[in-house]
Amino acid sequence: MRLGRPVAVRGFAAAVGRKEAEGPLRGRFDRAFTDSYCGQASWEKAESFMQKTAVRLACRKAELRPEDLDCVFAGDLLNQCIASAYAQRGLSVPFFGLYGACSTMAESLSLAAMAVDGGFARLCAAVTSSHFCSAERQFRTPLEYGGQRTPTAQWTATAAGCCVLAETGGGPFVTALTWGEVYDAGVKDMTNMGGAMAPAAYRTLRQHFEDTGRGPDAYDLILTGDLGALGAEVLTDFFARDGVDLRGRYDDCGLLLFSRETQDVHAGGSGCGCSAAVLCGHVLTGMREGRWKNVLFAATGALMSPTSSLQGESIPAICHAAAFSTEVDGLC
Amino acid sequence: MRLGRPVAVRGFAAAVGRKEAEGPLRGRFDRAFTDSYCGQASWEKAESFMQKTAVRLACRKAELRPEDLDCVFAGDLLNQCIASAYAQRGLSVPFFGLYGACSTMAESLSLAAMAVDGGFARLCAAVTSSHFCSAERQFRTPLEYGGQRTPTAQWTATAAGCCVLAETGGGPFVTALTWGEVYDAGVKDMTNMGGAMAPAAYRTLRQHFEDTGRGPDAYDLILTGDLGALGAEVLTDFFARDGVDLRGRYDDCGLLLFSRETQDVHAGGSGCGCSAAVLCGHVLTGMREGRWKNVLFAATGALMSPTSSLQGESIPAICHAAAFSTEVDGLC
Repeated sequence: MRLGRPVAVRGFAAAVGRKEAEGPLRGRFDRAFTDSYCGQASWEKAESFMQKTAVRLACRKAELRPEDLDCVFAGDLLNQCIASAYAQRGLSVPFFGLYGACSTMAESLSLAAMAVDGGFARLCAAVTSSHFCSAERQFRTPLEYGGQRTPTAQWTATAAGCCVLAETGGGPFVTALTWGEVYDAGVKDMTNMGGAMAPAAYRTLRQHFEDTGRGPDAYDLILTGDLGALGAEVLTDFFARDGVDLRGRYDDCGLLLFSRETQDVHAGGSGCGCSAAVLCGHVLTGMREGRWKNVLFAATGALMSPTSSLQGESIPAICHAAAFSTEVDGLC
Repeated sequence: MRLGRPVAVRGFAAAVGRKEAEGPLRGRFDRAFTDSYCGQASWEKAESFMQKTAVRLACRKAELRPEDLDCVFAGDLLNQCIASAYAQRGLSVPFFGLYGACSTMAESLSLAAMAVDGGFARLCAAVTSSHFCSAERQFRTPLEYGGQRTPTAQWTATAAGCCVLAETGGGPFVTALTWGEVYDAGVKDMTNMGGAMAPAAYRTLRQHFEDTGRGPDAYDLILTGDLGALGAEVLTDFFARDGVDLRGRYDDCGLLLFSRETQDVHAGGSGCGCSAAVLCGHVLTGMREGRWKNVLFAATGALMSPTSSLQGESIPAICHAAAFSTEVDGLC
């Protein structure tokens, strides 16, 4: 759907952990924590603190106070979305908790853009976070076990990103949204989420091109998050079979955040903080710098749980897409 | 916020378990399952099936097919919201996953009403579910342990409720929304969620009365969900201190769904299926029957997790409110 009047990204910020700050995007983030605890008593509290930091920095860059926000849409990977709920304490701003796994940044952006465009809020924050240590012990094995990872496994990013959307501002602007449906391709391997999510990304992107009548060449950058090496290859293959060439303009947040050569992340980064930090650290900054004019951001999520996997279920996946432009009437 | 044009509740349905069907609201639900597995292989799959049933029945009553929906806003209590994600498989409708604990029905209604009122969707479903057995083993102790429950504990309802909202229809209508903020009153006892959530309910209801300039007497029924016996008493006390008398028009979904005298539920019902089923089974039906004209539905959520509680954290709570009226211009 095309927004009635493009919604401005008034401010944005990313806070990341040390490994993320030392990767290929070093220098592109607003805050880097050197300690995985961010000075807190647990990794869960650290993640919450990181999310709060991203909100505060995004507001500061937008010359706002957090309490000026009309609404916050936030989510994370932790059970009961505690990183988000605890980050909201003391903020006194209406809050909606979301769960979309690694697609959450696109989900929060979609709802925040809808709230602003529909006249329900003047200023809205969309924020997500993830933390390698809290995610490992919840989803996989506690770090102390030293569990071995498969080649298709992705590395959950320790990162948070926040966008403040507003009715007016200098941009970039959110110009269009494509809301995703749940699609289950039958993949049952929890260590191959890229493979499980790629078909959902393909369906949402294809729908976006169909609905808007634009091809991939309308964008300088098409960005999935986070399919990793295998999922990105599957997606490129799917489009190649349709005769659509994504090369040269397609990338994946999980491949941008880490170096697969030097950082031992196997198939790449993941976690809803990964796409959030790549978008709010690297991409929106790059758009303001004039590097890209039109960007399609398509975050993907694998919606299984350890319980559903133990019960033999396959992985339902989803992908929501948001189009950004540096111009108000860009592609609208 | 007042909706530009009240959003119609085109259809609604509730599906419940046996205990719920045998309680004081017996005969008010569209479907009652006698088997806690609902014919599925696990309680998690049963919950998902119950949620899907609620969506299908609500659509049928609205004379629609599920695939006619433009969007579904859904949430539940299970980790990674699997009851909702798996219920969406094969539906081919855009989906947003939510987590607001027991407040989720008001959260999904708020976002669905916003999507319809803002012109982003013509038909939207808001749906939530909970299941006693899947919730006990996830949040507390597996049923087989026979763990003893405290007097303040609430009984998670096995129930799902769905509302289909539309631009037009015979009503009832959603006329106004009050979005809640996270509020932490410092309660640390996970078995006293009513006490933890009552202050959040008080703040949202007070804000609603302040913003709209209406007092409680503008409503035939003010319904929280699910404060239980203790939380409902705390809320009534808070308003009594302000000189506001809620008696005669206030009730709580957790107190309506079960009989505390005969059903051994301690402080009452809870779970996001509880308020969803009471709203979509009992209340909206009662509004169509002419029993109530103006209803304020204020669902409350306790946003802690077992992990945050083990880490010594207190319980952040939230409450979102939606006003319903049988008339398009009712109280608008």
